[in-house]
Amino acid sequence: MIKVTLTKNPKSKPQCDNLVFGRNFTDHMFMMNYNPEKGWHDARIIPYSPFEISPSALVFHYGQAIFEGMKAYKGKDGTVTMFRPRDNFLRMNRSADRLCIPQFDVDFAMQALAKLIETEKDWIPQAEGTSLYIRPFIIATDPCLGVKISDTYAFFIILSPVGSYYKNGFAPVSLYVEDFYTRASSGGTGEAKCAGNYATCLKAEQKAKSLGYDQVLWLDGKEKKFVEEVGSMNMFIVIDGEVITAKLDGTILPGITRNSIITVLKDKGYKVSERSLSIDEVLSAQKQGKLNEAFGTGTAAVVSPVAKLCYKGTDYIVGDGKMGKITNMLYDTLTGIQKGKYEDKFGWLFKI
Amino acid sequence: MIKVTLTKNPKSKPQCDNLVFGRNFTDHMFMMNYNPEKGWHDARIIPYSPFEISPSALVFHYGQAIFEGMKAYKGKDGTVTMFRPRDNFLRMNRSADRLCIPQFDVDFAMQALAKLIETEKDWIPQAEGTSLYIRPFIIATDPCLGVKISDTYAFFIILSPVGSYYKNGFAPVSLYVEDFYTRASSGGTGEAKCAGNYATCLKAEQKAKSLGYDQVLWLDGKEKKFVEEVGSMNMFIVIDGEVITAKLDGTILPGITRNSIITVLKDKGYKVSERSLSIDEVLSAQKQGKLNEAFGTGTAAVVSPVAKLCYKGTDYIVGDGKMGKITNMLYDTLTGIQKGKYEDKFGWLFKI
Repeated sequence: MIKVTLTKNPKSKPQCDNLVFGRNFTDHMFMMNYNPEKGWHDARIIPYSPFEISPSALVFHYGQAIFEGMKAYKGKDGTVTMFRPRDNFLRMNRSADRLCIPQFDVDFAMQALAKLIETEKDWIPQAEGTSLYIRPFIIATDPCLGVKISDTYAFFIILSPVGSYYKNGFAPVSLYVEDFYTRASSGGTGEAKCAGNYATCLKAEQKAKSLGYDQVLWLDGKEKKFVEEVGSMNMFIVIDGEVITAKLDGTILPGITRNSIITVLKDKGYKVSERSLSIDEVLSAQKQGKLNEAFGTGTAAVVSPVAKLCYKGTDYIVGDGKMGKITNMLYDTLTGIQKGKYEDKFGWLFKI
Repeated sequence: MIKVTLTKNPKSKPQCDNLVFGRNFTDHMFMMNYNPEKGWHDARIIPYSPFEISPSALVFHYGQAIFEGMKAYKGKDGTVTMFRPRDNFLRMNRSADRLCIPQFDVDFAMQALAKLIETEKDWIPQAEGTSLYIRPFIIATDPCLGVKISDTYAFFIILSPVGSYYKNGFAPVSLYVEDFYTRASSGGTGEAKCAGNYATCLKAEQKAKSLGYDQVLWLDGKEKKFVEEVGSMNMFIVIDGEVITAKLDGTILPGITRNSIITVLKDKGYKVSERSLSIDEVLSAQKQGKLNEAFGTGTAAVVSPVAKLCYKGTDYIVGDGKMGKITNMLYDTLTGIQKGKYEDKFGWLFKI
């Protein structure tokens, strides 16, 4: 049972044409709590607002926190569609396992999400490129300073109407190939969507931006040799017609968009490889004119073309420096399926 | 200027003989906030209580959070003494730099701490083994879901009267040498006292406990070969009279207690080495009867004797399985200096 308490002070909705990513929130949120006696309990939809928490809550001190990101789209006929939300909740339970957070019931989470989105359906923007961003997250709430697995947790779902993730729209991005800082290494939390992974990346992202690059391309933590991911996106590189992305070896986030991209590419007959790809192989291909395209994939950006890589002080242009044909096809296909322009042949859509 | 607002509802103080670590908090806490316009501002001592925060605050999603731990002791004459608190704040600023959190003024933090402890002096327990545990921490507070460095932060100091960190008192602990999971690797955040480092360790700690061991001894992230630390403690191992601890290479927390232990050992003429120490060297020494002692060091436990190591399914007893002579001497010396029993020849004490 999900108890619903509606706000008495609904907010005015932001203009669709000026949505900054993740800055506006809807009127309501979903919450439930966990303790060892009751399990997950007190599921409720309540007004979105600040909440009270102890300064000794474990999440502030030891970072036991996980999250997910997904999107809902509203069609011209008012139908609300989500893209593989169940896969996000399944991944969230895998992240929970890695962080020693108790499992939740995925079917119940799907019900809660549907009910919350139904409540907030007027908040879903309809303009091209816009959507309702959905952020489920779990935080550890024991008020206690001993390092330990929390006994209590809070699960939230908050919603934010968003435009494009990148302020510059669909302009190709430049990546700084990081060879000092590490995002993840074998045996760590690289494949979990946990809070600490992102804090770890900030310093290198700051460095990349100060040098004029948009984002960081991470190499493996052991040898700083193999291409891993972009922190907020999985990475795909097209060399001589082969579309290559890092294999899931425990250090890479198993992206839902990544998986969808691989599926679409295979379906369309492209050669796709999940394999180790050294930065040397990438740059060698570039010198031979065989580095055709590169792009990142993720829920927030869907597909993001990469036009330039910087490695050890040298810039390398990808392809002709513009969005590649495969990149463009994938963006069109994925967003086309999401928006109902193309057939949902893989059963990815979830209608509310 | 630090504004003081005293509580109107002082709590009853817990019994000294039954203090669980980090579960009881004093009546007041210190807080200040940061924004780019004002810098750190609104320094205040206010009643300890839950506080309001947005569910979209960056700390919950991307883990931008750091902390410190220190202790204050009350002597029989009522004098309140702290141990190297300035070094903790200096380290906190280094952690801040790694996590892209703005620097704070260490002198001002020292003033704030002194004023808070002065306010709460009746909360400092006096029984043997007890102290006032001090937890400064900083969290990112921007209400925003884009992955970014926060523009705003909150700095807290909260206080907790504590007994011994370990429930079993000074009994030697057993360590499970972890060869699958990783705590930190080169280029990561291992040397910063940030929240995410601790969440990363929970899974292996859970495994170690389920197998009957007290804590995890972490090996290096690259080769799983070299002894690093215990997650909540630095590790010292005595082989054939040489006291060895991992060198500070970026993956190890630069412990204040670690530094104090090295200083005391050198002062007393022991052979101390900060160097790479492979687990093979440790176990080989054990087989030859040369593994004299092992102990962990940290603010919470001060010095914690280690009696047993488990590596790949085999148990190895350290020394004679009891607390070693050097371990005992170091515990006596450190706590003796802290409590005023021995001369403070290194200038470590800070009297309030």
